[in-house]
Amino acid sequence: MAKEITNREENYALWYNNLVVKADLAENSSVRGCMVIKPYGYAIWEKIQRTLDDMFKETGHVNAYFPLFIPKSFLSKEAEHVEGFAKECAVVTHHRLMNDPGGKGVVVDPAAKLEEELIIRPTSETIIWNTYKNWIKSYRDLPVLCNQWANVVRWEMRTRLFLRTAEFLWQEGHTAHATRQEAIEETERMVNVYASFARDWMAMPVLVGSKTPSERFAGALDTLCIEALMQDGKALQAGTSHFLGQNFAKAFDVQFAGKEGKLEYVWATSWGVSTRLIGALIMAHSDNNGLVLPPKLAPLQVVLVPIYKGSEELQQLAEYLLPVKKALEAKGITVKLDDRDNVRSGFKFAEWEMKGVPVRIAAGPRDLQQETLEVARRDTFEKQSVPKEGIAGYIAQLLVTIQDNIYKKALDFREAHTFTIDNYATFKTRIEDGGFFLCHWDGTPETEAKIKEETKATIRCIPAGVPPEPGTCMVTGKPSAQRVVFARAY
Amino acid sequence: MAKEITNREENYALWYNNLVVKADLAENSSVRGCMVIKPYGYAIWEKIQRTLDDMFKETGHVNAYFPLFIPKSFLSKEAEHVEGFAKECAVVTHHRLMNDPGGKGVVVDPAAKLEEELIIRPTSETIIWNTYKNWIKSYRDLPVLCNQWANVVRWEMRTRLFLRTAEFLWQEGHTAHATRQEAIEETERMVNVYASFARDWMAMPVLVGSKTPSERFAGALDTLCIEALMQDGKALQAGTSHFLGQNFAKAFDVQFAGKEGKLEYVWATSWGVSTRLIGALIMAHSDNNGLVLPPKLAPLQVVLVPIYKGSEELQQLAEYLLPVKKALEAKGITVKLDDRDNVRSGFKFAEWEMKGVPVRIAAGPRDLQQETLEVARRDTFEKQSVPKEGIAGYIAQLLVTIQDNIYKKALDFREAHTFTIDNYATFKTRIEDGGFFLCHWDGTPETEAKIKEETKATIRCIPAGVPPEPGTCMVTGKPSAQRVVFARAY
Repeated sequence: MAKEITNREENYALWYNNLVVKADLAENSSVRGCMVIKPYGYAIWEKIQRTLDDMFKETGHVNAYFPLFIPKSFLSKEAEHVEGFAKECAVVTHHRLMNDPGGKGVVVDPAAKLEEELIIRPTSETIIWNTYKNWIKSYRDLPVLCNQWANVVRWEMRTRLFLRTAEFLWQEGHTAHATRQEAIEETERMVNVYASFARDWMAMPVLVGSKTPSERFAGALDTLCIEALMQDGKALQAGTSHFLGQNFAKAFDVQFAGKEGKLEYVWATSWGVSTRLIGALIMAHSDNNGLVLPPKLAPLQVVLVPIYKGSEELQQLAEYLLPVKKALEAKGITVKLDDRDNVRSGFKFAEWEMKGVPVRIAAGPRDLQQETLEVARRDTFEKQSVPKEGIAGYIAQLLVTIQDNIYKKALDFREAHTFTIDNYATFKTRIEDGGFFLCHWDGTPETEAKIKEETKATIRCIPAGVPPEPGTCMVTGKPSAQRVVFARAY
Repeated sequence: MAKEITNREENYALWYNNLVVKADLAENSSVRGCMVIKPYGYAIWEKIQRTLDDMFKETGHVNAYFPLFIPKSFLSKEAEHVEGFAKECAVVTHHRLMNDPGGKGVVVDPAAKLEEELIIRPTSETIIWNTYKNWIKSYRDLPVLCNQWANVVRWEMRTRLFLRTAEFLWQEGHTAHATRQEAIEETERMVNVYASFARDWMAMPVLVGSKTPSERFAGALDTLCIEALMQDGKALQAGTSHFLGQNFAKAFDVQFAGKEGKLEYVWATSWGVSTRLIGALIMAHSDNNGLVLPPKLAPLQVVLVPIYKGSEELQQLAEYLLPVKKALEAKGITVKLDDRDNVRSGFKFAEWEMKGVPVRIAAGPRDLQQETLEVARRDTFEKQSVPKEGIAGYIAQLLVTIQDNIYKKALDFREAHTFTIDNYATFKTRIEDGGFFLCHWDGTPETEAKIKEETKATIRCIPAGVPPEPGTCMVTGKPSAQRVVFARAY
């Protein structure tokens, strides 16, 4: 099988795009900036969704659904929010088409102009807080812990499959609390849920921290985030959790009566992850042969490939492999027997490699004779002959090993690409090669802007849970309370 | 607790609306025609989704995701389709807002006008067949069996929660086949999946049949449907499955090379159900005390209510009920212990009745003494004292009994309201009281239109699997091959 994708080392962006398309994950649609998520890519999203949804429910959340449309005037109610989101968005102005009087298909009916334009939600704080106004009257109505799985639209000029698209799928949690402290705890709880999910399911180590004011969500008092390092040395923000203070409660006048009857504004959080996670998953682990998927999120965990000549051998091997398939399925492993007779084994091997199936089990006539199977790992390409007897237990264990190994590899990569730098000149040179840079910064937006301007690097986060290590800013020499994480980012 | 909802018998429409709001299922949003699905209502949708999704996968389907936006020109490609769907829809014309030069919030930026307007999908045949064009080249690429869970928008003028809203949630299956026969079989398979789901999960008997040409989906050669009878005697179309022939393949030029290399147009189906099912579920079973839910779709199947005086008794009863809760949960039953101390038991009873929880278990001091529990059924209001010992097995069985009873009640109702009528004058009188009417019709759209005009009744379906019984049309006396089902409908 011919090499189908560009090498990472040659052109990382092209490698990524080739891989997304060749592994059948997604493709660009006819609508500018919108993608089609193909069944194989969507199956990964379903696994992500199912797992996160369970985690949200375990932490006390329920799902609900709010309108796709936001009245234009709602966006103006929170001053910072409108600056951040009202600019590039899809605007619905009419509600009817009519036959073109000139006979050319259909045209917008000018008589069906809306009184107030509707915005396709870029995020739902405004419509949700307008709704919460009616739900929350007393402290007994709090907390409200809602999540929504939905599509959102942000009119991006430069789009990339999964990483940045005009429409994307996501979840957005929106919670309401009686106290500042409770809302802050929720904000932290949810960023930690994201971090656990990234580590335990995506096999992707992440840094947890706060954004600087200039990188915060529009309307938030604090934005916590998880940041992952991709194989090209660029950072990717994979999830955010916002402490919104009372900003939206004030904008939409949401007050509650406390135990003593006094009216107070409600405290808010919001938090979200999107189909961008699939982009992160791809870029964190994959190689020049295609996708590498952690077993826990792989739609297909094992593929069985008979190596045969002629239909009689195929028949024999299919019979030999069928009990293997059943034994694996009995352990809850998802498995496919690839008995196609119109492509060669080499083609099948390359195809399943491209699609990142964690384990391939092949069997030829000799395996049949010796009661063995050839087991190949996608993550290391190691092959081993294994007795057929007890194969299910062996594979179940191997999947755990692979999951751990993929995580370890990503963690090793991140550690090898995390640098402590104190000299700005060195920083400027070294940032070209990518990686996370732990540096002292004086805490001013001016210095932050200067660094971004001169190096394209941004502060990815002020890391949480790190003992403060005072120092001096690498640019201005002014005092700094702790190192922050710089990187170039997606 | 004061009576909270209007009686069905007084004003059915108001009863329905009161119930949806009081049972906390949904509410109207600030956006005209769009609803907010509240957590309790959404939990029902999640159960519907999970179950149907499993049924789709068992029948070989996979999920995918296609864009929210449809270029205006796509709608014009299938002539009948555009007539049916292009008229009342949300049209995106701009992609940016800007600060109002007059200082009043934000306004549409006239410079950000789209070259081609985008329609919010009212259904996705066009964007999907435009995509399938690239997926399907050979008979080996067929069948394509995709489903999509999504939101769609149809600009309805008169909306009702769940039953007819501008935006709603649904699933839409879109399949592509090599032969006409295979596509017809798929159309039938999926309408039968819907019928099984309605019967076995919603406890709602449905008629399965074909629509007449005038009631077909715009662009279909045949539309199969499931039709349910609501308690006010009106019919509700609960799901449809369309045989689309080669219409969309021709409109989007989707051809495949057969085994001999000859190019042929692909055969298509599409099928869908929506959040309307929740409206059907409510109207099929509920009563003047509120919602009645079949146990299989109830977010909460059992509620435990301690009947106590003072905090010591509450404590004792909570301890008494906790093992009951655990035993039920061990059987996979969803259960809540309502130990609120700020509302009285009567209030709790009324609230859980309103929310349709199938079984209520109450316990007071005497139950504690006698090791008993008071079990009340929501469907029949029957109460019984039951030994605490073995309660989990008893309740598990009771939930099955309730599920069956709710179905039987709905089936009995339908049978009592299904009439065979041969005289048009009689029909005109009897239709006023509602029900399904099995009548002979001459098969012409003219007669169908006349009946609709004169009686507001439409042909709900030409029933499938019924032995043909020739007769004469009740209106024109012309020959008829079989009886069809008339009703007034939602």
